Amino acid sequence: MMAELEALLDTRIRSIPDWPVPGVVFRDITPLLADPAGIPAVVEGIATALTAAGVHGADLVAGVEARGFILGAPLAVGLGVGFVPVRKEGKLPGDVHAESYDLEYGQATLEVQVGAVASGHRVVLVDDVLATGGTAAAAVNLLRAAGAEVLALVCLLELPALGGRERLDVPVIALRAV
Amino acid sequence: MMAELEALLDTRIRSIPDWPVPGVVFRDITPLLADPAGIPAVVEGIATALTAAGVHGADLVAGVEARGFILGAPLAVGLGVGFVPVRKEGKLPGDVHAESYDLEYGQATLEVQVGAVASGHRVVLVDDVLATGGTAAAAVNLLRAAGAEVLALVCLLELPALGGRERLDVPVIALRAV
Repeated sequence: MMAELEALLDTRIRSIPDWPVPGVVFRDITPLLADPAGIPAVVEGIATALTAAGVHGADLVAGVEARGFILGAPLAVGLGVGFVPVRKEGKLPGDVHAESYDLEYGQATLEVQVGAVASGHRVVLVDDVLATGGTAAAAVNLLRAAGAEVLALVCLLELPALGGRERLDVPVIALRAV
Repeated sequence: MMAELEALLDTRIRSIPDWPVPGVVFRDITPLLADPAGIPAVVEGIATALTAAGVHGADLVAGVEARGFILGAPLAVGLGVGFVPVRKEGKLPGDVHAESYDLEYGQATLEVQVGAVASGHRVVLVDDVLATGGTAAAAVNLLRAAGAEVLALVCLLELPALGGRERLDVPVIALRAV
């Protein structure tokens, strides 16, 4: 299973140089998503990796807009828990927690709804790629502000050269390092 | 099952008046997503409704950014097919098909990657709410430009008073009308 997953990650994720800005290599997961085996293999691989890392008893999966939604919702179903969206600024109605942060290119703000996470709920955070860790760190802060205990960050790809893992104080589970 | 689904849709979707602009009632599906039973019930309900409507043999599920991603990816897994994201302007690398359209409030552009859909592939399109139908019609046009046959639009909620269904030339399957 893990060999099959690694093959999928290696062959179904494209590197796009100089996108969205010069000097950045964008990792395009759309071929993985289009493969009927792609998302199920990712969900199974993450569930296996969480167990292997001793991460148990999640109450919620949180996904970071927008690719984290595509991975996080099926993962929530696979783990039998609910899903909470971590959204970009201005997308969520009602009272929100907000956190601004620096991106690899530019700046952004993430939001979660007040009340989206019950106090003490144990949350697995999901995104597609861990690069500098700015987005993930902001999402961790946000979820904690909402009352969550963040059990782990899970990502498909980690770019270790960018040091994202060192910026995070939660366990990081990456299915593949590139 | 359908009674349980209807109860979930009635109790786990909030109406937020005057958001994002005065006069619009926003339908907030986040409580539905946070319920562990929510997404699985929606996936099962959609699969059942597709079968009842005689829609068979889908090759892909397409979801409209961003809430359509949260529903579409688990639906693709449930149907055993791949997922293709219909994204907002500037989010997809490489060559894209693009379509601009008028929203209930404002204007927007949707894009799909060239090559994301194989010629003749049969696609089920998913979004959370069918209102005026502008977004859905643009997504149908885009998917056709990419070579797809669009089998149906599936949504959680339809607002029949806004006439969206009349603007679409594909079957519309709505789990609930409000």
